[in-house]
Amino acid sequence: MKTTISSIQAVNWCNDHIRLLDQRLLPKEEVYLDIYEVSSLANAIRNMVVRGAPAIGITAAYGSVLAARDCYRSNPQSWRKAVEQQLTILEAARPTAVNLSWAINTMRKIMDNITHEDPTSILLNAAQNIHDRDVTDNKIMGEFGATLINHNAAILTHCNAGSLATGGYGTALGVIRSAYFAGKIKQVYADETRPWLQGARLTAWELIRDGIPVTIITDNAAAHLMNTQAIQWIIVGADRIAANGDTANKIGTYSLAVAAHYHGINFMVVAPTSTFDTKIKHGQAIPIEIRAADEVITIADTNIAPLGVQAWNPAFDITPAELISAIVTERGIIIKPNTEKIAKLLSDID
Amino acid sequence: MKTTISSIQAVNWCNDHIRLLDQRLLPKEEVYLDIYEVSSLANAIRNMVVRGAPAIGITAAYGSVLAARDCYRSNPQSWRKAVEQQLTILEAARPTAVNLSWAINTMRKIMDNITHEDPTSILLNAAQNIHDRDVTDNKIMGEFGATLINHNAAILTHCNAGSLATGGYGTALGVIRSAYFAGKIKQVYADETRPWLQGARLTAWELIRDGIPVTIITDNAAAHLMNTQAIQWIIVGADRIAANGDTANKIGTYSLAVAAHYHGINFMVVAPTSTFDTKIKHGQAIPIEIRAADEVITIADTNIAPLGVQAWNPAFDITPAELISAIVTERGIIIKPNTEKIAKLLSDID
Repeated sequence: MKTTISSIQAVNWCNDHIRLLDQRLLPKEEVYLDIYEVSSLANAIRNMVVRGAPAIGITAAYGSVLAARDCYRSNPQSWRKAVEQQLTILEAARPTAVNLSWAINTMRKIMDNITHEDPTSILLNAAQNIHDRDVTDNKIMGEFGATLINHNAAILTHCNAGSLATGGYGTALGVIRSAYFAGKIKQVYADETRPWLQGARLTAWELIRDGIPVTIITDNAAAHLMNTQAIQWIIVGADRIAANGDTANKIGTYSLAVAAHYHGINFMVVAPTSTFDTKIKHGQAIPIEIRAADEVITIADTNIAPLGVQAWNPAFDITPAELISAIVTERGIIIKPNTEKIAKLLSDID
Repeated sequence: MKTTISSIQAVNWCNDHIRLLDQRLLPKEEVYLDIYEVSSLANAIRNMVVRGAPAIGITAAYGSVLAARDCYRSNPQSWRKAVEQQLTILEAARPTAVNLSWAINTMRKIMDNITHEDPTSILLNAAQNIHDRDVTDNKIMGEFGATLINHNAAILTHCNAGSLATGGYGTALGVIRSAYFAGKIKQVYADETRPWLQGARLTAWELIRDGIPVTIITDNAAAHLMNTQAIQWIIVGADRIAANGDTANKIGTYSLAVAAHYHGINFMVVAPTSTFDTKIKHGQAIPIEIRAADEVITIADTNIAPLGVQAWNPAFDITPAELISAIVTERGIIIKPNTEKIAKLLSDID
């Protein structure tokens, strides 16, 4: 059995700029984009060059370095006001994943403590810490999540919550990696995840690189899979988790959770504690990004639907806490999550 | 309000051969294929030139005419044995929709009563009766189904159960047409229906031609739609219905039924009584066609997944009767279907 994992870097700091793996082109082409300024970075996030809540957070942390460096160079006396404008642009790039504003707020606090010197190296160090910490936390979550999986398991996952969606190793795919290398998983099924096909394109690519057996299915085959194959767990990532455990994640997650509930199949959400947004009490208050109709109407540059058709394209949905068997974080596992258990876990951190 | 419907002919007898609208090319191109022999016809059914259970049945009825005519011309004395070989080929083209064998068996019975004459005109008349009857029945089902719909409804449908899937007018789309022209429907949502995208390509095309407001969604957005919009009914067709009401239909139907159940949304199956297969007691015994992995891995001639990936591609799934609010047939509506109610409806026919 292969026990090493391939290293994939979705986002990286490269000398004086950010290097992003263009995930829109995978698995066909492995192309990296070099980004030197915040406006380009915000576009790259908006246009899905980089995606996945933790990876967006790390990208925004590095983006804060770009912003502060450039503003300081232009005006060392009053760079803070200018940087705030750039951070606001970055923060607005995508609305649902809380990791974006979490990372920017973390960087803001560090900026507040910088007095008169060039902020670049302090901020770069902080961004790299966020990045490193994400990988470390993913490996911890991988070990935690794997304890919930019994031997010989078949697992279903949705979208891509792997190396490509994080600093490395992955959240949902981190658990799958850890459990697979512990000999517990015999088969992974990956929903293709329309419209962007992150499952068919990215999750399949990552798992094949690691030698983990993966079979893709259309999203609409998932309930039939649950009804006819012995699926032990459905494992997904998260873009934002409300105080009560309601979880925003890639469109289709809710459909899986409803079907898992009907079939008595366990449903696991894997996310670092930075994904919690306890200012929001319930999932209904989480903003759901509605993306362009064209993403549904066009596949691989081909129009699949008749001219003039309308399409509705919500990028995320909300899975209520009562459909979630466990939330796995770097600080521990919450079985049957609710407001009290989540508050306790988070207060243990503070 | 536009109150006429456009005429679309998925299948037709044309002088001395069958003309099929090549549904693989819609909505981009409207191309008709002329088919003169059974082996080509079986390929056309297998390769999805024509699809939809009733349309496949009508095609097979016309195919029986081709078979008998050619066998009689070759050997007027003993054409029956040769024709049976051809009917067996035709019957094996696709396994799930019972309408294929139903139509062929109907034609077989008529052949049995032909004594010495050329069978062509008698059989052609019978096939045209099956075709005409299908359209008539669809309009009756349309009226029946529309009585279940309250005003100002939003409806979700899956795959294509329209003119293109039938002799004309449609089963699920027949109900939607009748209810729309009765002023009861304000919005139709159509699942795109991967992998063949019959919803995005065919249902959207049909409804736009009739001026019925249609919005397409990815299959994985359906549960989120149910949770956030006031969907009154989910309406689908059927490929085979077991004695107890368990229904085989396009992959993804089961997922919708599970989600509809969770949200307390009504779920309607619309199918002519020829879709019942009472020799089969429960849905588990209905054969489910597993199609090629390539249909999932490739979209619009582009590989979407990494080389060497596995894919599982069941073309249908089974919705258990307990998730179905009503089955609408040309003989009446069965509310909360079960074995007794179905047996009674079918015995009323005999």
